[in-house]
Amino acid sequence: MNAPAKLEGLEVGYDIPALPGMDEADIQTPCLILDLDALERNIVKMGEYARAHGMRHRAHGKMHKSVDVLKLQERLGGAIGVCCQKVSEAEVFVRGGIKDVLVSNQVRDPAKIDRLARLPKLGSRIIVCVDDADNVAELSKAAEKHGTTIECFVEIDCGAGRCGVTTSADVVKIAKAIDAAPGLKFAGIQAYQGAMQHIDSYEERKAKLDAAIAMVKDAVAALETAGLKPELVSGGGTGSYYFESESGVYNELQCGSYAFMDADYGRIHDKDGRRIDQGEWENALFILTSVMSHAKADKAICDAGLKAQSVDSGLPFVYGRDDVKYIKCSDEHGVIEDPKGVLEVNEKLRLVPGHCDPTCNVHDWYVGVRNGKVETVWPVSARGKAY
Amino acid sequence: MNAPAKLEGLEVGYDIPALPGMDEADIQTPCLILDLDALERNIVKMGEYARAHGMRHRAHGKMHKSVDVLKLQERLGGAIGVCCQKVSEAEVFVRGGIKDVLVSNQVRDPAKIDRLARLPKLGSRIIVCVDDADNVAELSKAAEKHGTTIECFVEIDCGAGRCGVTTSADVVKIAKAIDAAPGLKFAGIQAYQGAMQHIDSYEERKAKLDAAIAMVKDAVAALETAGLKPELVSGGGTGSYYFESESGVYNELQCGSYAFMDADYGRIHDKDGRRIDQGEWENALFILTSVMSHAKADKAICDAGLKAQSVDSGLPFVYGRDDVKYIKCSDEHGVIEDPKGVLEVNEKLRLVPGHCDPTCNVHDWYVGVRNGKVETVWPVSARGKAY
Repeated sequence: MNAPAKLEGLEVGYDIPALPGMDEADIQTPCLILDLDALERNIVKMGEYARAHGMRHRAHGKMHKSVDVLKLQERLGGAIGVCCQKVSEAEVFVRGGIKDVLVSNQVRDPAKIDRLARLPKLGSRIIVCVDDADNVAELSKAAEKHGTTIECFVEIDCGAGRCGVTTSADVVKIAKAIDAAPGLKFAGIQAYQGAMQHIDSYEERKAKLDAAIAMVKDAVAALETAGLKPELVSGGGTGSYYFESESGVYNELQCGSYAFMDADYGRIHDKDGRRIDQGEWENALFILTSVMSHAKADKAICDAGLKAQSVDSGLPFVYGRDDVKYIKCSDEHGVIEDPKGVLEVNEKLRLVPGHCDPTCNVHDWYVGVRNGKVETVWPVSARGKAY
Repeated sequence: MNAPAKLEGLEVGYDIPALPGMDEADIQTPCLILDLDALERNIVKMGEYARAHGMRHRAHGKMHKSVDVLKLQERLGGAIGVCCQKVSEAEVFVRGGIKDVLVSNQVRDPAKIDRLARLPKLGSRIIVCVDDADNVAELSKAAEKHGTTIECFVEIDCGAGRCGVTTSADVVKIAKAIDAAPGLKFAGIQAYQGAMQHIDSYEERKAKLDAAIAMVKDAVAALETAGLKPELVSGGGTGSYYFESESGVYNELQCGSYAFMDADYGRIHDKDGRRIDQGEWENALFILTSVMSHAKADKAICDAGLKAQSVDSGLPFVYGRDDVKYIKCSDEHGVIEDPKGVLEVNEKLRLVPGHCDPTCNVHDWYVGVRNGKVETVWPVSARGKAY
């Protein structure tokens, strides 16, 4: 894991929070750090699980937006490629050398469809989701224009309440349209139950997934009757992957957050009633922050506020500390309750963010640390790639 | 307002959401757009207010993080310079040519202090806030090392509950230390009441500011007794600037959000009981978003979710539309209630973000529009500059 050459000439503090070889103590805050040992253990573990269960693992790149992390997931975890949510993210992963790329989302804007249709020319398999028969014609026209093949999943809304069709009849109708359209190939089903991933109780999650699996089985049966057996049935997240793996109908997982973990996922429980960040997965992602004012005896102010994280799923917690608590934040400040006044100015703390995906999207760099040293610094390659 | 030369060669969609000269309809979403007419009117209005009340206006650059917007505030609104929250932001504004720069925050990390002490060499006045006597010695040592002068404000916590001292005795003690320290100059007081800015009622805001003004007056009197009359007394935001301006003790304002407005500020009321976005200030900042799925009759899914905004202060509202409502968001999706099914796929909507500051920090570009055309595209110059 060597740092890319383009780090040369970057100024620590202005351009980048750290450079490889530095002591962890000298990292400029606030920034994201990755505990490389924990990250690698998470990646290996998910890879072993997927292999043992005969599942392909298509790692969700929307979470980390990093070509470097994705390559680690391929190398250590046997990931077969990536899924992501935007054409601009797909462009980053394809240009970064990832060979199997799913845009697990609808693409409707004509300019974006045109960009998507050009991507297979760079040598990667490109798959996109469809939930509307009109979209089939749009995609087909663009693929024909560029002489490429776009593969398509029909998206089923199996409980997330966003995109996707809700009946097997609609699935078959759209799959037939894809199958008949020049430049397109029907490749399978997208069925990600996003709304249940963060439900605390294992049993409640299972009930939601059982309903989703029933919908997917019905759709697959209908497709087989129509002579359109899906090659891939894809879905599953960090809060559900065991259900899809044992469903007998899914053959591809799309887990993302397992690699980094966050406070919101950490709070859900496994089948033995244990928090999933207490055994199943390790916290590998942290916001490193420094105390920058302690003018009040019982309150420390740190330098990580709203511009260093997303608080949509709650505040971060201070990793490994029961004596202090992050209780409030504003744009550039975090307020840390320090009842015994134990914190000192310039002391560094590791925060576990509430929600990893949008927190990673605020930062330009991951600082990878091991044994107290900065081992690597990776760009958040697709940061801000939303359009 | 011409686009900077560095826009040449950028690819619309992959690198940038739009280029100057494009029709507004062709902008790639989601992205931030600025209504340049509204922005200019807001800036002119605040400039006229400050001039009429004999106040310096130091525009808060932490809100927009844009050298281009700041220069517009100087040119059209008579802003005397900038305040910002981080050394890395100050570096961006100084390198961008802004001549009077306040870091309205504490700087304690030795590497950051060193960078701050180098900044005056680039020709700008540099001011920083202090709330701890130990910090005085640290700043002095760095200024001496670089042969520069760092000016210092003593920060009073007049209600925000973050950094800052709370007694006039502490103000005088720190001011004396600054005055005696080589390389430093005591320049005045920082007294920003951040906690009251977003309180709905004008009368409640006034009561909080009255308390803050009383603290500041007491501190100024104590400083004068000690022979340290402050040159500048700085503070005030979009929810309070009229109180500071009429206080008789403040002489510098630090308003930021007035220029762009957002949903959270818009909800507060002026002294006549009117929302401040209904007369006092205009919405100039929007997240432009497109409908990308309408698989359910009463629900449209748009392409702006958590990675296109910060929802810490609530969800955005759809500008100029009473018939549809943004009700939910996930990482890349927004759910829009569309009870009558009036929205169409690829239709564009303008969202007013809940909180402008952290929303701007997610984006790389401002697309400036006027009369249906893209007139300019400005980088969010200090985006991600947090360390």
